[in-house]
Amino acid sequence: MAGAKAAVILPRPVTFVTGNAKKLEEVKAIIGNSIPFKSLKLDLPELQGEPEDISKEKARLAALQVNGPVLVEDTCLCFNALKGLPGPYIKWFLEKLGHEGLNNLLMAYEDKSAYALCAFSFSHGPGAEPLTFLGKTPGKIVPARGPTDFGWDPVFQPDGYDQTYAEMAKEEKNKISHRYKSLAMVKSHFKEAGYVFQTTVDE
Amino acid sequence: MAGAKAAVILPRPVTFVTGNAKKLEEVKAIIGNSIPFKSLKLDLPELQGEPEDISKEKARLAALQVNGPVLVEDTCLCFNALKGLPGPYIKWFLEKLGHEGLNNLLMAYEDKSAYALCAFSFSHGPGAEPLTFLGKTPGKIVPARGPTDFGWDPVFQPDGYDQTYAEMAKEEKNKISHRYKSLAMVKSHFKEAGYVFQTTVDE
Repeated sequence: MAGAKAAVILPRPVTFVTGNAKKLEEVKAIIGNSIPFKSLKLDLPELQGEPEDISKEKARLAALQVNGPVLVEDTCLCFNALKGLPGPYIKWFLEKLGHEGLNNLLMAYEDKSAYALCAFSFSHGPGAEPLTFLGKTPGKIVPARGPTDFGWDPVFQPDGYDQTYAEMAKEEKNKISHRYKSLAMVKSHFKEAGYVFQTTVDE
Repeated sequence: MAGAKAAVILPRPVTFVTGNAKKLEEVKAIIGNSIPFKSLKLDLPELQGEPEDISKEKARLAALQVNGPVLVEDTCLCFNALKGLPGPYIKWFLEKLGHEGLNNLLMAYEDKSAYALCAFSFSHGPGAEPLTFLGKTPGKIVPARGPTDFGWDPVFQPDGYDQTYAEMAKEEKNKISHRYKSLAMVKSHFKEAGYVFQTTVDE
């Protein structure tokens, strides 16, 4: 904690809302052990809107349910020619149209540029205004190349690379990925904020 | 009320969730005065998902907030080549891409067919499973024609007509529109159900 700045005291742990145990490991690996994390699968509504608004609202709802500090995560794939769409709705477009269908959406446009966007939002607890950390990786939409077992990775080729996300080695992808960038911001925030975590009686 | 069937008793009135006074008038005009309606603008989350699921969940949330019977309405524009998308997200696609952009989404496809979908959901109150009434009008997506003051009406030409929704006389459109069809089902339901409305002390 820097200088005379008062520390924010939070109940422990921070609940990372996910049904995916691997994502919790990733968060712990990047942020380290200074912050006590647990993961929890919550049945939260999937909202429409701008990516940052969706993320903040999700954090607000999660903080109410958990009654404590929460971290939530969302991913978007945004096509520049479509002014950022499909964006937060990419899940449905991928599910219904597949990789070829995603390319087809841009048939009318020469501009195939896109960006992968990851939004983490952190709320201190119920009623607190969430902080949002947006990680962006620019690239372009290409016909699918590489393993097809991870969402839209085969159709997204990050700028400066000849490979799609799907073709890249995991370590390589993790150095430049939208999720990595967003999580790096979360890490910096935790470092600077110097939160103090209360120990509850049942620990 | 038909034969020996017991009537469902509901608190009055039914709250139609809308910020648009004209929509309340439309509902009253079609359903008639047998059902006591009032309108209320509620700040409900806009959800992602399948149109019917979105509508039901909206009715559930509204019934909790209102603590009584509610009617909610949603509209989708579904492109067959895109497996029903943009569907519930049409608002964002129209806002960001305009009429030309909506046509461009189908550039890769010969199939320009689409359908306009209106979903009304009615919930008896908190905890009750909502009933959903889906009205569909088939047509196709065309370059914009007609007045541009009402959403995507200029790019939707219903089957069997040479005019777009925007070019049609209001009375003509109302005879075949997705909203009319959905509301006609709501009307039939109210007629068959024979709900009895309680009078509260403050009325």
